[in-house]
Amino acid sequence: MQIENEAITEVETKAKAAKEAARRLATVGAAAKNAALHAMADALSERCDELLEANARDIGAARNRGLTPHLIERLTLNPKRIDAMREGLAQVATLPDPIGEIVGGWRRPNGLQINKMRVPLGVIGIIYESRPNVTVDAAALCLKSGNAVVLRGGSEAIHSNVALTNVIAQAAAGQGIPAGAIALIETTDRAAARHLMTLNQYVDCLIPRGGASLIETVVKNATVPVIETGTGNCHIYVDANADAEMATRIMMNAKCSRPSVCNAAETLLVHADVAEAFLSVALAELHRAGVEVRGCPETRGKAGEVPVAAATEEDYFTEFNALTLAVKVVRSLDEAIAHINHYGTRHSEAIVTQDYAAAQRFCDEVDAAAVYVNASTRFTDGFEFGFGAEIGISNQKLHARGPMGLEELTTIKYVVRGDGQVR
Amino acid sequence: MQIENEAITEVETKAKAAKEAARRLATVGAAAKNAALHAMADALSERCDELLEANARDIGAARNRGLTPHLIERLTLNPKRIDAMREGLAQVATLPDPIGEIVGGWRRPNGLQINKMRVPLGVIGIIYESRPNVTVDAAALCLKSGNAVVLRGGSEAIHSNVALTNVIAQAAAGQGIPAGAIALIETTDRAAARHLMTLNQYVDCLIPRGGASLIETVVKNATVPVIETGTGNCHIYVDANADAEMATRIMMNAKCSRPSVCNAAETLLVHADVAEAFLSVALAELHRAGVEVRGCPETRGKAGEVPVAAATEEDYFTEFNALTLAVKVVRSLDEAIAHINHYGTRHSEAIVTQDYAAAQRFCDEVDAAAVYVNASTRFTDGFEFGFGAEIGISNQKLHARGPMGLEELTTIKYVVRGDGQVR
Repeated sequence: MQIENEAITEVETKAKAAKEAARRLATVGAAAKNAALHAMADALSERCDELLEANARDIGAARNRGLTPHLIERLTLNPKRIDAMREGLAQVATLPDPIGEIVGGWRRPNGLQINKMRVPLGVIGIIYESRPNVTVDAAALCLKSGNAVVLRGGSEAIHSNVALTNVIAQAAAGQGIPAGAIALIETTDRAAARHLMTLNQYVDCLIPRGGASLIETVVKNATVPVIETGTGNCHIYVDANADAEMATRIMMNAKCSRPSVCNAAETLLVHADVAEAFLSVALAELHRAGVEVRGCPETRGKAGEVPVAAATEEDYFTEFNALTLAVKVVRSLDEAIAHINHYGTRHSEAIVTQDYAAAQRFCDEVDAAAVYVNASTRFTDGFEFGFGAEIGISNQKLHARGPMGLEELTTIKYVVRGDGQVR
Repeated sequence: MQIENEAITEVETKAKAAKEAARRLATVGAAAKNAALHAMADALSERCDELLEANARDIGAARNRGLTPHLIERLTLNPKRIDAMREGLAQVATLPDPIGEIVGGWRRPNGLQINKMRVPLGVIGIIYESRPNVTVDAAALCLKSGNAVVLRGGSEAIHSNVALTNVIAQAAAGQGIPAGAIALIETTDRAAARHLMTLNQYVDCLIPRGGASLIETVVKNATVPVIETGTGNCHIYVDANADAEMATRIMMNAKCSRPSVCNAAETLLVHADVAEAFLSVALAELHRAGVEVRGCPETRGKAGEVPVAAATEEDYFTEFNALTLAVKVVRSLDEAIAHINHYGTRHSEAIVTQDYAAAQRFCDEVDAAAVYVNASTRFTDGFEFGFGAEIGISNQKLHARGPMGLEELTTIKYVVRGDGQVR
């Protein structure tokens, strides 16, 4: 109970300070923000030893707690990774400042001039899991977009996150960034995260970054508006009029280039007209690449020598995040679209086709953040889209959809200038 | 318990059907949507008697339950009000269709063409209180923006809402609008509203329209993303360099032209340098208009013959929604901005000044959906802004801020066209 009270006090204090910092940060120009980003980058190099020392404590604790090698790998900092963070900060400094952009403006018949201006959201709460680089990435993007940030990382990375936050927050403060603009909740008690999720008076937006259960917890418990990121159950649909070579290339890329990420494909749909010809090549190639295939009865019937397990209803709903692919033969474009809209997570969906009408219908009727014709779903990414940065990929329809860069961390304000108008 | 189960079944069935309708509605063109809007308008006239009869049942029940004359007035339909709804529908038909607009597009170095296209949100849930015209307004705006709508009105208007929804949904269906695109939850049990708030798989967005407690309930209980509308604790700040005549005019308009609405002013802040001169005129004028003034000690000291009660801390936080105004003398622009950012609800805030730097600082530093220089806060309104429609005024920063027209009922989809690109 005492720990819980302390946790709540810390969150309350830091969120309130962040709100005050955000008010001042909103009017800080790009030159000062960029100077701060460069100073943060320099400080990471200069204080590298301190960071590695803190990280070693986390790694030691993780080993003692018996965390998997995979999790320990994600948690690990080394000079190369710190250098990558440093480069990330420098890169954010080169991006255009979104704040102050007039996204629209018009004059009303009564003479009022209405300007719609891009402004920061205010205070952004980031709730995330093990990788400590998120601490630096998120702080940089929030700072560049004029927002204060309250970070809440995983308990397994607490020493690394405290050290990283100290280093970058001090460097930023040295360049005149308001104190409190970059804050980390140091209490690892769960009450802290829960409290952060309901601090509507101080926090303008929450972005959870991590696995499905973290995101679900935030969506369920937050009263602060949330931008949901994450799950991608993506499909490649090979149409009756697909170029088979292109379809294979796109399928292999979407499944195998990085199976653990949200824009990787999880299900392959194949039009019945080309199933025989296409699957005879595709299943063998998947097998050679070490992909476990789970197929519908028709797919299994065409599998020949290639081992194909029976796909269950559950498989079609699953984001495997691994070298596993569900394969289903469909009778028509309609069936493909219906399957995707039913089983998909509205993330990234691709059709491979040479048929104009099929391409158009797929783009119009599939409900997803990104729909692709003749390209891999793997391109759904802030860098691949040309945003120069990414805070996550929004899986919801409100505010931001798809890859989120700096613009998605802003809102607008109407600035209305008159000369005495009344209504 | 049985009623609760029935309520849940009804909500579930209608929300699911709305989701299916939304998929088809997303590709319906403006001509068909406009034809439906005109048919809905005609049907309101043709079936006017049926609507008045249903409304009479609500009025009767309201009288029996002892509802206030004010609430009964809000609930009442008459031929003139039905005609206003009819005109509203015709007006929405004249607005440009937001769907399909390409809000941005670019080609990537690898040849991918990325188009950012405006698409409907999908299914919008509207939870609202007594006025039955919201049923028709909300249905029209959702339809025009390609969204299915699930309406949940107040129990006191249930017969009116059922009749209105039947009339317009049948008319829309007659023009080929998918069945289920305009649905009303007819169960008045609270379990229905609670269930609607958590149906993330079918409902894309919730917009509560009503009093503060309704909105708070939705924000607290919803897992579906919410667009918060409503409370406006708006200020008029009379700067040291204000034109006194203009300041009085703006203050009177902002307070008195329609005190019950969210863009009306609740607190007047006056710079100390002009407090004596300004208040001697302004307080008398407010008094003549029947405004009850609650002032700070300094204001009371300058009130002369005009009765001014002592303002409490609570008064500065209060949206009176009535002919009541808090008045406070401030030492500086800084104090005015700090007061507004502390007590305000980030809705609409105005400065009256001839000082360029003060105007700039007020616009930059006040955190609100709309900031005004030398104009009344009453202009924060979809029609006054020139949107031709309004579904509400967003009080949050995510997705939509300020008056919401058709565009605010949309999201975007990235349509990416390639010729075989992989990553």
